Amino acid sequence: MALSEFNLIEHYFSRLGCQREDTVLAVGDDCALLKPPPGKLLAVSVDTLVAGVHFFADTDPENLGHKSLAVNLSDLAAMGAEPAWATLALTLPQSDPDWLSAFSRGFSALAIEHNVQLVGGDTTQGPLSVTVQVQGFVQPDRYLSRAAARPGDLIYATGSLGDAGLALAGLRGQASAVGYLDKLQSRLERPEPRIAAGQAFAGIAGCGIDISDGLLADLGHICAASGAAARVELDRIPLSAAVRAYIAETGDWQTVVSSGDDYELCVTVPELLKTRFEEAVRSLDLAVSLIGRIEPGAGVCCVDGHGNPVDFTAKGYDHFQS
Amino acid sequence: MALSEFNLIEHYFSRLGCQREDTVLAVGDDCALLKPPPGKLLAVSVDTLVAGVHFFADTDPENLGHKSLAVNLSDLAAMGAEPAWATLALTLPQSDPDWLSAFSRGFSALAIEHNVQLVGGDTTQGPLSVTVQVQGFVQPDRYLSRAAARPGDLIYATGSLGDAGLALAGLRGQASAVGYLDKLQSRLERPEPRIAAGQAFAGIAGCGIDISDGLLADLGHICAASGAAARVELDRIPLSAAVRAYIAETGDWQTVVSSGDDYELCVTVPELLKTRFEEAVRSLDLAVSLIGRIEPGAGVCCVDGHGNPVDFTAKGYDHFQS
Repeated sequence: MALSEFNLIEHYFSRLGCQREDTVLAVGDDCALLKPPPGKLLAVSVDTLVAGVHFFADTDPENLGHKSLAVNLSDLAAMGAEPAWATLALTLPQSDPDWLSAFSRGFSALAIEHNVQLVGGDTTQGPLSVTVQVQGFVQPDRYLSRAAARPGDLIYATGSLGDAGLALAGLRGQASAVGYLDKLQSRLERPEPRIAAGQAFAGIAGCGIDISDGLLADLGHICAASGAAARVELDRIPLSAAVRAYIAETGDWQTVVSSGDDYELCVTVPELLKTRFEEAVRSLDLAVSLIGRIEPGAGVCCVDGHGNPVDFTAKGYDHFQS
Repeated sequence: MALSEFNLIEHYFSRLGCQREDTVLAVGDDCALLKPPPGKLLAVSVDTLVAGVHFFADTDPENLGHKSLAVNLSDLAAMGAEPAWATLALTLPQSDPDWLSAFSRGFSALAIEHNVQLVGGDTTQGPLSVTVQVQGFVQPDRYLSRAAARPGDLIYATGSLGDAGLALAGLRGQASAVGYLDKLQSRLERPEPRIAAGQAFAGIAGCGIDISDGLLADLGHICAASGAAARVELDRIPLSAAVRAYIAETGDWQTVVSSGDDYELCVTVPELLKTRFEEAVRSLDLAVSLIGRIEPGAGVCCVDGHGNPVDFTAKGYDHFQS
């Protein structure tokens, strides 16, 4: 039996995530009513995932529920924000109870992990697409932006890069990548937003961005906003064992530097704050690697182990690039 | 030439609506950073419009830009909120500069009218769909909800009902409605959110809802949330000259009571506050009509001029009703 729109919202979405005391009204009225903490700024981000573009239409719905929230929380992480609320606009071809149940399970588990409450949404009929908006808090003088990088700053990246890109290549049947698929698929389908890292870095790092479009593209945004260049040493980019083996076999660095979906953080740190930053890192259960340096100029340049520039053609994912 | 995603955001969406002093960071970083006023609650609503479901794919894009913001502002109006910020998640089959320019013009004009700034968004490639989220402010003790209606309360509606529904019937080629299309199409395509009315009613009216799914359905939400019934006198429902002529010709009240998209407000007012409410109405440049009364019981009942119940089968639009 098809569920009506109102039953559907009530059944699957009225109690998703945790219950927060600063939520006055959640799902069920014309608006949610929220009580932001005095003295803090509200950080807001929105992202859409479209079937056939951002995910395969037959993706496991529990993973999709997780990922649709994770990519948004990742934007909060990149500002150093504390997550609080989410809304969900879900467009579905039909209302399938099994699909909805799995989707809401994946969404809710991650929401609870990060103290997020679903406070509103809209359910419409149409081609499968998920738009999530998240809200969180930052201190007015302690957040990561894109425009604060200065020549001499150190560039760090969390976790490992290229895993999601290699998994995607494997799913698409690119022969040399298929063998690595099993190890890496969860990195593509269940990214972990680096919330704790973002909050630990805020007030020390100047810039922060999450790597959603690829290292070259995202670090490029920092360079453009800051009016500076970046020099990245390929040998220092943190790699999983699977990606390391793949590069040893193929020499393909392009997948590492220009594929998105890793949702690691890339931050810039003034050299004077290096010790303080590395102390903050020790409080995290997460590898954080020094991968390069901000320089005068413009654009991102990668160099190999001998200091020779390596040129990459594709800079990252762009929806409307011809 | 196709615009890249980043140029597109920069060109059409980085300066939409008005510039607000309480916006710390708008479009261009991982998150927008906003400064909500102390002591107020944040009201949040999200709505998606999907091509082929909520609008015809060849709808004038300027009207679509207007409507995609208007339907969200209407939710703020239904809470009695003061609008402040919006985000826009736009999924497009391709990036067409003429379409984008017209869309952003329609969106921006309405945003400026209501002091709204576009502070963030996401542009993705896929089937045409628009998700807008708006945020505004209410006083903690002065907002309209759905759960405050009590037997004896008076029910009022703003403007006129059925215009958008009749226009839609005309666009769909339903013979008896086609003749009214010209007069009513702008009511369907460029609804005016009743922001000033909502703010004037807050603190006097108990319940408020915007009529987006049809009077029966939306008033039904108030009844369900309040644990009460509603009795509506058909003769008192405010009608435009076009809808009055259509009903005289066809006798079809169904279009008036069960079609959505009018985005008028329906509110309930305790009888003791009738004088104060009607004084508030006089400050508005908008007709507001007494259409019925809240009663004990459940559900919405319509009566004709002789007090006889009139039964309607279709209750309103539901995306997943089989």
